[in-house]
Amino acid sequence: MNSHYNCFRPFSHFIMETLTLAPFPSRGISSRYSLFRRPSSRRNFWRAQTTVSELANLEAQSGPKPIPLEISSVEEALMGFISGRRKATEVAQAVWKNVVHRGDTVIDATCGNGHDTLALVKMVADKLGKGCVYGLDIQQSAIDNTSSLLEMSTEEHERKSVQLFNVCHSKMDEIIPKENPVRLVAFNLGYLPGGDKTLITVPHTTEMALRAASKLLDSKGLISIIVYVGHPGGRDELEIVEAFTSSLPAETWVGCKFQMLNRPVAPILVLLFKK
Amino acid sequence: MNSHYNCFRPFSHFIMETLTLAPFPSRGISSRYSLFRRPSSRRNFWRAQTTVSELANLEAQSGPKPIPLEISSVEEALMGFISGRRKATEVAQAVWKNVVHRGDTVIDATCGNGHDTLALVKMVADKLGKGCVYGLDIQQSAIDNTSSLLEMSTEEHERKSVQLFNVCHSKMDEIIPKENPVRLVAFNLGYLPGGDKTLITVPHTTEMALRAASKLLDSKGLISIIVYVGHPGGRDELEIVEAFTSSLPAETWVGCKFQMLNRPVAPILVLLFKK
Repeated sequence: MNSHYNCFRPFSHFIMETLTLAPFPSRGISSRYSLFRRPSSRRNFWRAQTTVSELANLEAQSGPKPIPLEISSVEEALMGFISGRRKATEVAQAVWKNVVHRGDTVIDATCGNGHDTLALVKMVADKLGKGCVYGLDIQQSAIDNTSSLLEMSTEEHERKSVQLFNVCHSKMDEIIPKENPVRLVAFNLGYLPGGDKTLITVPHTTEMALRAASKLLDSKGLISIIVYVGHPGGRDELEIVEAFTSSLPAETWVGCKFQMLNRPVAPILVLLFKK
Repeated sequence: MNSHYNCFRPFSHFIMETLTLAPFPSRGISSRYSLFRRPSSRRNFWRAQTTVSELANLEAQSGPKPIPLEISSVEEALMGFISGRRKATEVAQAVWKNVVHRGDTVIDATCGNGHDTLALVKMVADKLGKGCVYGLDIQQSAIDNTSSLLEMSTEEHERKSVQLFNVCHSKMDEIIPKENPVRLVAFNLGYLPGGDKTLITVPHTTEMALRAASKLLDSKGLISIIVYVGHPGGRDELEIVEAFTSSLPAETWVGCKFQMLNRPVAPILVLLFKK
């Protein structure tokens, strides 16, 4: 197995590194990210932020562009999915909208280019400072892209609800406080779109992440997983996701799968609802 | 293989038998079913009808009772499904409502106790006499139950839209005129609820039925299949349904599956949309 595939540094190492980079609130500094304590929060979280000048640089590169965020209704998304006009990711987001409420705490376990993180921010952030989105990704470029997208597409009070972590999804239980009930954990497995396709999430850490997510999740909460099977290792990851889902007791969990049968490499949606 | 499992008589035999029974419109005859030509139709269809006195007998037996027909929205059905409160059949019916319109022609390939047939009648029948539901079942008791349920739960103009056939689902292409575009074909596989559980639909005829349905189906039409895997032979039938779906070209078909992963014997929904 390629060592890149794994979470290559422990979380404690990550914390120390970020502290060394920028221990206090700051904008316009030369390093790409400032990480600072949120004065308004009783909890000491660390938040990654992109400066405006850095944003311009990012835009000039091949990073994400602002997108109008429009999440379909479940009816639109499902009818579109079964008629080939909508993607599994759209069904997932439509379902989230029916599970997640303003003020909730949610986790994007695999930020990627930040589209899911952005969708979640729009669902949970409110002007009272409630609502919290934890975004995780093992790749720094994913965190950069997500931060850039959020900077372009959110308002100030929405950005305050986000905390991004350049850390493996399997480490989420080291980040999210146990006493904080989580309404949704979203996984978009595989590789970073537009990034290095050899850097992928892998079965071992994905299984750890699912286990951690299932413990953090509140009652009536949802774990949403998009599995990509078109790249090497994708099928192995699907097997792990299916095995984990199958092992969940039916008394307390509903675990269902939405799959295209005549498009073998189409993404597969797995939803785990905690009763 | 038990010979009961197969379609035990050719369609030509069936037609001759019904013609011998009652060639003209009739009510109140002693035999349970009258089969007659519909004068209002340009096409020569055959319709099964139950008399009022027979209905009283059927009600006195353990047949179906009138039920309030309430079909959920897709949103209610899907959110209910993923949270364990709604069944796959409810998702299926909710989806049909978005595909089928008044005046359409549809097929219930496996009437069972008639609940799907009733739902389809309510969707397609209109007072102008448009809309047509073909209901098929290999078991006479299923046709009886369906007819009884329709008698109890539909109005006259709705009943006129239905034609019931005691014939194997694999014979649908011998019943439905080729020039009649079909919007939906519904399959509810397995055994008749409340009936003899050794009498089940089987892979061989189900595959023939799917093939026939795929040819009869109009563009933008849907084949909806509920597969039960909790009885002997159920897994074999699922394999056939999956293999058939996987063989459909992705350019002209969308074939998707909805499955509970942590409830191994839960019914599985497969939807085949013709682009």
